[in-house]
Amino acid sequence: MSEDRLSSEVYAQAVDRLRRLVASPSVAADGRAIPETAEAVAGILREDGFDPVLHDTGGAPVVHARHEVPGAPTLLLYNHYDVQPEDPVEAWDSPPFELTERDGALYGRGAADDKGELVSRLAAFRTFRERHGALPFGVAFLIEGEEEIGSPHLPEYVRTHRDALRADGCLWEFGGVDASERPVSFAGMKGIVTVELHVRTADRDLHSSFGSVADDAAWRMSAAVASLRDADGTVAIEGFRDGIEAPDAALLAHVDALPDEEVELARTFGIERWQGGLAGAAWKRALYLEPTLNVNGIHAGYGGEGAKTVLPCEATAKLDLRLVPGQDPVAVRDAIRRHLDRHGFQDVRVIPLQHAEPAARSDLSDPFFAHAVRALEETYGVPPALQPNSPGSGPAHPFVHDLGVPIVGIGCGYPGSRIHGPNEHLRTRDLHRGTLATVRFLELWSGVRT
Amino acid sequence: MSEDRLSSEVYAQAVDRLRRLVASPSVAADGRAIPETAEAVAGILREDGFDPVLHDTGGAPVVHARHEVPGAPTLLLYNHYDVQPEDPVEAWDSPPFELTERDGALYGRGAADDKGELVSRLAAFRTFRERHGALPFGVAFLIEGEEEIGSPHLPEYVRTHRDALRADGCLWEFGGVDASERPVSFAGMKGIVTVELHVRTADRDLHSSFGSVADDAAWRMSAAVASLRDADGTVAIEGFRDGIEAPDAALLAHVDALPDEEVELARTFGIERWQGGLAGAAWKRALYLEPTLNVNGIHAGYGGEGAKTVLPCEATAKLDLRLVPGQDPVAVRDAIRRHLDRHGFQDVRVIPLQHAEPAARSDLSDPFFAHAVRALEETYGVPPALQPNSPGSGPAHPFVHDLGVPIVGIGCGYPGSRIHGPNEHLRTRDLHRGTLATVRFLELWSGVRT
Repeated sequence: MSEDRLSSEVYAQAVDRLRRLVASPSVAADGRAIPETAEAVAGILREDGFDPVLHDTGGAPVVHARHEVPGAPTLLLYNHYDVQPEDPVEAWDSPPFELTERDGALYGRGAADDKGELVSRLAAFRTFRERHGALPFGVAFLIEGEEEIGSPHLPEYVRTHRDALRADGCLWEFGGVDASERPVSFAGMKGIVTVELHVRTADRDLHSSFGSVADDAAWRMSAAVASLRDADGTVAIEGFRDGIEAPDAALLAHVDALPDEEVELARTFGIERWQGGLAGAAWKRALYLEPTLNVNGIHAGYGGEGAKTVLPCEATAKLDLRLVPGQDPVAVRDAIRRHLDRHGFQDVRVIPLQHAEPAARSDLSDPFFAHAVRALEETYGVPPALQPNSPGSGPAHPFVHDLGVPIVGIGCGYPGSRIHGPNEHLRTRDLHRGTLATVRFLELWSGVRT
Repeated sequence: MSEDRLSSEVYAQAVDRLRRLVASPSVAADGRAIPETAEAVAGILREDGFDPVLHDTGGAPVVHARHEVPGAPTLLLYNHYDVQPEDPVEAWDSPPFELTERDGALYGRGAADDKGELVSRLAAFRTFRERHGALPFGVAFLIEGEEEIGSPHLPEYVRTHRDALRADGCLWEFGGVDASERPVSFAGMKGIVTVELHVRTADRDLHSSFGSVADDAAWRMSAAVASLRDADGTVAIEGFRDGIEAPDAALLAHVDALPDEEVELARTFGIERWQGGLAGAAWKRALYLEPTLNVNGIHAGYGGEGAKTVLPCEATAKLDLRLVPGQDPVAVRDAIRRHLDRHGFQDVRVIPLQHAEPAARSDLSDPFFAHAVRALEETYGVPPALQPNSPGSGPAHPFVHDLGVPIVGIGCGYPGSRIHGPNEHLRTRDLHRGTLATVRFLELWSGVRT
């Protein structure tokens, strides 16, 4: 196990940079402070001797920099400078855009996702240089400003900047430890498509005494949503599984060998029984390898105290579908429409929301991953869980498939960091350990003697 | 057609009484001003020479008065002095508890439901006396204070006061005209049972990347609710129809002969197509003779702008079930529980809400109804629609089945009166006509020469 803290100068610089970035409220959802934050990120890269440029994407600019070392491999870093909205702002214990240290953690919107990870990467390079001199490998940065709204311009950006982004591997935007403080990494991301369903049955709510002759939007939406999954929860949309590549024996064995988490997670989340009684290997295979359809919300009619005999005229539901490699998000969206039509729900509208990303999974036999596993084990003192893909979703597909690079997650997160919610924070010990794990990964991957 | 206005003295007195009653915010849901309003009602009855008493019920008191005329029949009047909450108070154009006249209508909470109907009854008696001298028939009042919360103490009250309430017929709490200004009456009420469904799948909302292993409360509730009706909307609960008496040929013929309303109502409500394409006689049979299950509301998870990839841990739905004669509301509630258990929804709780009333329908061949029909036709100049029962629900069962009296609806309402909502109002012309129709009914029923 290596030392477990950054030097005080490196740590102080990272916190100072994070303070500057958090102060810039770069909320992608409303386009707030996006150009200024891109400039601030470029300024920080410039302080470290990189030569950043802002690339127009049609949306928020990408901050790009490329440092070549002739004859040496190049590491691509994917991060983002945009953040989620700070709502509900009254639920924060300190101002969301003012980095505040308390109880061993740094609080602020973006402190964890993803500004903290970005300053950690730069702290890792500085530490590497302090130990070994100039970087013996190339570095390329792709720091986008639309991750929190589904990276709508990223795939096209990657395709048109393929040459500037060519690399031998990609350090993904996050990583960290699980609920047991075991390091976790991953070699891909699930895909995602999000839609809203909407139905209107009249131009006003009716008294429910009309319920035997008039349609009830709340019931129609419940029935439409229920039709999308079988009684056991399996997605029932015709064509949903089209294109899925069956996991091979090696992948199944890799997943089966991951540490068991379901007992501890059930306790943490207050879950009495996992879906369909899942446990052990079946639980892990479902989490990492199965696609799903989630109802993020459903709303119609009365929700107050007691009874109100109303027949609601309008209902909405929000769905996300988590995809595995081979599924096409646009085809899945079309399949929802066809399913609803076939099942008598022609009146239910399907409105695309911001996400439509295919899944991507790197080849776990790439030596890239052996370096990551060893770096994490040496830093944390326990072997990491290397997930074939995160159960979460992200724009990994253009990296793995257009650029042809493996992606790996190493970083400073933990499950309690409240990303996307009030009181988002980065634990200072995670900033130390995640950065040191990154340094160790750079050493192993670049073959520097240590 | 008789004269179409009350005398100015009678009208002024009715409005003044309504002003006093509306000023008393007798909201049953929170028990506000209940005893004072009962006293105010008793005071008004006393002004008219009745001898009211307040009967304890275990809840809000019943205002009761009985005026006997030996050897003559007795008319029972059922009304209520409680009202719905005034929320949302900001949506009112004048204070809810301050009777305000504008544009030919009297605005205020309870102006229509049911304080306006109560003062109309008393104005009808005064008009009758001014025309014919002392009432030649007995009168009994049952004015309760819990109608808006499902009349929980009424059935027991009626059973224990059967003697005080004995009568030959009952004038029900409301009546009026339909959207075409045609008078409507009815001879019964549907029943109702209301429940809330609740499910919890974890002790916090999860990130939806757990959706392939963790249950989603929004989906489970959608599936549970959807299971309660077949694809065509028919209630699918085993045992739901137990006890229903099939309508006989006379009843079907009566319903089929009612005026067609569905085209005009579809236009009013902005409905493109009634449930399952219902029209004509099938529409009327469904509206008056079929029971149903309505989803008054369903709520879970995210409902804001765009996507939020959350797995909600909690979901609720509110249901009302409209019952027809023969169905037992408590047995129906039990059948919902059994249905959910049988369909794998043991985790969905069924919480009884305030309503559990059986339906009741009077015998349409009772001469009582011929008098009502003639009184309405003479007053309005068009034949009324006499519904075998209102599509709405009310505590008619103890009247029809414990007291053995027919109930008939005559009153001052119209479909736009916004009862239960902001800007509830009583049109002044409905107050005139509804009261005069009541006078004419009293004349015909009591056999006074006119």
